[in-house]
Amino acid sequence: MASVTAGNSEFDRDTAVTRRAPGVYDAHLSAGWTIINAVNGGYLLALLGRALGDALPHPDPLTLTAHYLTASAPGPAVVRTEVVRTGRTLSTGTATLVQFADDGTEVERIRVLATYGDLAALPDDVRTTAKPPAIPPYEHCLGTDSAPGDRPAIPGSTAITERLDVRLDPATVGWAVGAPSGKGEMRGWFGLADGREPDPLALLLAVDGLPPTAFDLGLSGWVPTVELTCHVRHRPAPGPLRVSITTRNLAGGFLEEDAEVWDSADRLVAQSRQLARTILAR
Amino acid sequence: MASVTAGNSEFDRDTAVTRRAPGVYDAHLSAGWTIINAVNGGYLLALLGRALGDALPHPDPLTLTAHYLTASAPGPAVVRTEVVRTGRTLSTGTATLVQFADDGTEVERIRVLATYGDLAALPDDVRTTAKPPAIPPYEHCLGTDSAPGDRPAIPGSTAITERLDVRLDPATVGWAVGAPSGKGEMRGWFGLADGREPDPLALLLAVDGLPPTAFDLGLSGWVPTVELTCHVRHRPAPGPLRVSITTRNLAGGFLEEDAEVWDSADRLVAQSRQLARTILAR
Repeated sequence: MASVTAGNSEFDRDTAVTRRAPGVYDAHLSAGWTIINAVNGGYLLALLGRALGDALPHPDPLTLTAHYLTASAPGPAVVRTEVVRTGRTLSTGTATLVQFADDGTEVERIRVLATYGDLAALPDDVRTTAKPPAIPPYEHCLGTDSAPGDRPAIPGSTAITERLDVRLDPATVGWAVGAPSGKGEMRGWFGLADGREPDPLALLLAVDGLPPTAFDLGLSGWVPTVELTCHVRHRPAPGPLRVSITTRNLAGGFLEEDAEVWDSADRLVAQSRQLARTILAR
Repeated sequence: MASVTAGNSEFDRDTAVTRRAPGVYDAHLSAGWTIINAVNGGYLLALLGRALGDALPHPDPLTLTAHYLTASAPGPAVVRTEVVRTGRTLSTGTATLVQFADDGTEVERIRVLATYGDLAALPDDVRTTAKPPAIPPYEHCLGTDSAPGDRPAIPGSTAITERLDVRLDPATVGWAVGAPSGKGEMRGWFGLADGREPDPLALLLAVDGLPPTAFDLGLSGWVPTVELTCHVRHRPAPGPLRVSITTRNLAGGFLEEDAEVWDSADRLVAQSRQLARTILAR
């Protein structure tokens, strides 16, 4: 038995996996990362990403795709990995997260396909034409403790809000008071509440850590992720992240969410896109 | 033995797969879809997408991710599929494309993870805020036959140019005469040369069917795809497609290419993103 995790933050502790056999890992999905009763998809991605980082010869997820098959529940889980190909600078693998029904039946939750590399070994050239999102200073943005009285400014979230330090751009929180912008945008500062600094695994959490853009489009209800792909492009510098999410194509009961994550050094460190289903409540 | 393909176009003929056993398909990678010696990645995606459409209970790729492991060569190949999960409206599966070395060793070329559904069964709501790309009329755009003399306006391409009817926006072909815009954009009209109308499989071809945006950034050399994810959002209307590709983050020897495909009815029918490696020749 080998513990794969390092560090003693909430995030490291709760995404820890224990190697039981080559390519087989025991995990415990923490109730601390739930939204209502659902385990957050970015948290699950980080846990799977950690297992793959152990199974593959390269440490960092460069591109990771997850298909969410059934809803994960807090409690025990098993991750199984397969090495697809090992190259000099890149390696590719799959991972599957399974849980067990009361009768012992195995139920697959998530299937992942990813290519890993070594971010520290990449050349340091940057020719990024994208610009960091315009987000007001942290102290002018809104968190769950920003509302007067006992009502959180960001309603509906639960345990995960205690783990995250999310501060939303006021321009993208009109939905919380019944006035969504209709633009399909969500922007804010993102960090871990206990001060753990970001790394590539935390970027997998960050790309699915803000409220859904569907709220800003005036939709209520659940927006389950079908598939999410994240490209990690650089190891983030210490300090808070800025996350910007946009939806441009809401049609046929599906929408895409494009996320960008920028670090404190103004570097575009991750890009993601997910396909989600939506219930057209309005 | 069951032939999965229908139609007698070049595209249907060359992406045909033959079921040899449940989940196992024989294929022949055609030399007609090569760029120099490399088999086009979108063509391979369409062939794999066709096999998965046979293996899964739902007909259409909604989200399909491919990791390109080794370079495919024209000639025989085998596709193996696995059904991961079958639901009422969605089903998820994997596919792998393999070829064989002279000594009979199996070499994996591509691994795919995809979720399929039935595009015809989706509700017809559309709230797309994205706008179709501004591309000049077809007759003002440039194809391989547009150059005076015997030099093609789009250099470097080979067999695939005879299969496709691509007409590029003159604003994005400066690289062909040594004057790239530096913006990382590629736009144009896209169709099949023999007039076959677009369908979801042809969209998988379209998202990787234009010259790389790296050319417009002033880079020369090879830009191999590491991973490509395509969301098919609607069955395309008959008529030419418009494809717009942009790169916003060229850094660390990698770049992303975001493609949008619009149909003749001004509907955003596919969105894709790929992660590619680049050699910084300049």
